[in-house]
Amino acid sequence: MRIAIVGAGMMGTATSFPLAARGHEVTLVGTPLDGAIVRSVQSTRRHPRLGLNVAAGVRAVAVEALAETVAASEAIVLGVSSAGLSWAGHALSRALPGPRSIAMVTKGLEPEDGGLRILPDRLRDALPAPVRVEPVMIAGPCIAGELARGTPSTVALASRDPEAARRFADLAVGPLFAAAIEPDVIGACVCAALKNAYAVVVGIATGLHERAGGPSGPVAHHNLEAALFGRALAEMGDLVEALGGRRATALGLAGGGDLFVTCQGGRSTRLGRLLGLGRTLAAARAELSTPEAPVTLEGVDVTEIVTAVRTSTEAPLLHRLRRILFDGAPADSIAGVP
Amino acid sequence: MRIAIVGAGMMGTATSFPLAARGHEVTLVGTPLDGAIVRSVQSTRRHPRLGLNVAAGVRAVAVEALAETVAASEAIVLGVSSAGLSWAGHALSRALPGPRSIAMVTKGLEPEDGGLRILPDRLRDALPAPVRVEPVMIAGPCIAGELARGTPSTVALASRDPEAARRFADLAVGPLFAAAIEPDVIGACVCAALKNAYAVVVGIATGLHERAGGPSGPVAHHNLEAALFGRALAEMGDLVEALGGRRATALGLAGGGDLFVTCQGGRSTRLGRLLGLGRTLAAARAELSTPEAPVTLEGVDVTEIVTAVRTSTEAPLLHRLRRILFDGAPADSIAGVP
Repeated sequence: MRIAIVGAGMMGTATSFPLAARGHEVTLVGTPLDGAIVRSVQSTRRHPRLGLNVAAGVRAVAVEALAETVAASEAIVLGVSSAGLSWAGHALSRALPGPRSIAMVTKGLEPEDGGLRILPDRLRDALPAPVRVEPVMIAGPCIAGELARGTPSTVALASRDPEAARRFADLAVGPLFAAAIEPDVIGACVCAALKNAYAVVVGIATGLHERAGGPSGPVAHHNLEAALFGRALAEMGDLVEALGGRRATALGLAGGGDLFVTCQGGRSTRLGRLLGLGRTLAAARAELSTPEAPVTLEGVDVTEIVTAVRTSTEAPLLHRLRRILFDGAPADSIAGVP
Repeated sequence: MRIAIVGAGMMGTATSFPLAARGHEVTLVGTPLDGAIVRSVQSTRRHPRLGLNVAAGVRAVAVEALAETVAASEAIVLGVSSAGLSWAGHALSRALPGPRSIAMVTKGLEPEDGGLRILPDRLRDALPAPVRVEPVMIAGPCIAGELARGTPSTVALASRDPEAARRFADLAVGPLFAAAIEPDVIGACVCAALKNAYAVVVGIATGLHERAGGPSGPVAHHNLEAALFGRALAEMGDLVEALGGRRATALGLAGGGDLFVTCQGGRSTRLGRLLGLGRTLAAARAELSTPEAPVTLEGVDVTEIVTAVRTSTEAPLLHRLRRILFDGAPADSIAGVP
């Protein structure tokens, strides 16, 4: 099958590996920001950010070829970040010749009318009626670099249309890539967004440990870390239910599984560590940014969005994190009262 | 208040730190196996296995002084392992002068009449009517060495009598020791037992990673590890419910929190790693045992106990682990089919 992956970043490109392993003809379509990646793949097959060559059967094209590539594809994977979703929805709306299976690695929440909206719904609503489908969100614990390198990976495929999720699973699942169908797309999306905030929460324990004189490292202050992890899981379940999903979704791949993998490293955990060490958000942000670009801190954004619509009784950890991030509260206040 | 801790092992002794910090007069009562520990504490104040001195206000007595110490105490903490519970119940039955608040670090499940019984019920039933109380189980993520060293720790206090749990919290909680009251003692006990098995499951990913040539270390093959963690959480929720507890208990300190901390190290994770490396259970057991004593592998025991009463549909991960442990199935079969 011909599959277009729109967005040639880490996660979009990583998705090409299981698809190519299944024999599909995969085209990576760069966004306007992916020019250097596309040129690198075209000239040397190497993806500069993943640090490895794309699989045989995968080619890359620049954004100018988006319309013709999408028109010639039988399925689409959206590999853009949430910041790129509006652009991608607009581009797909013009390029799709008819309804196509659409999977997306983009996940998260955004404010809408005093509530929250999940990004798969935003994409669906952005598509004109003749090409409108329920997208399939690729959720669950999946580090792009591991997926690309063939580490056994299991995702949750969440959609309001479970048949669409099953069809994408049929395309993609292989010996190293498993998928569970998750009908609770709201729960999966809420978990996917919240895990970034809760990984900051858990990461704070590491920083507090180092500040107290313990060795640096990915794991430390285990009791506090695990207490925060356990409380985060419970709060995640509460919020999933409050926002219209099923509490049990927090008990699985898209919830605890994804939170677990996010706590093993990445920006959110590093932000938590720096907060635990006593840095302000501004100082931590500067430390995590590169000279080229400010870092995107999804955990900060989701904390702001969710605490705006949920009280500190409903989300005590998130509100404590909010006070640490924005109001100068000390990092050890994250543990709160029993 | 005068408090007797029966059992001077790691966890029992660790519990003396928050109690002493609250100003209680704490006596560690050795079991028949704790002679060397008691002598060490008596002569140098040092607990040889924790590797540090007991707190001021804590004293140790040998098993011969059990009856008089228990008789003079207003609250009891049982610090014995599950193997020592029968002995402890018998000893308490003879020594208690009347009903006393009893907390226990002992937790787990045992087979009973084709089903399973939680250990707090076994202790309660072992006490004669005049001194019978509902014990308070100390559950949740709490590594003994960290609690003893003053790392902020949060436990779940689970009892069929929530008032008893609250009373123990009132005795013990302080700036570095928090407690949440967990009314679902069945759920907390099932989680406490299962986490040992699921930590083996998650640990297998580490061994598979090393066998595939990745570096050794506490965390590796993150995607697989996290997928197993997520599936373990979901299965834990299912089993808690099937065994009479509340599914939501898996979403919290006693469930995901305790599983998280158990995955950071310890015997169960090490066993999983060795299985992932291709060792048989017998070889792994030999490698984890000391010349003095065979290692106790709670994760193996609970897998055997629970798979005897629950089908592979109800507990697919546990049954796969069982086949790896006892039937020579390859370690990578743990991931199973999607």
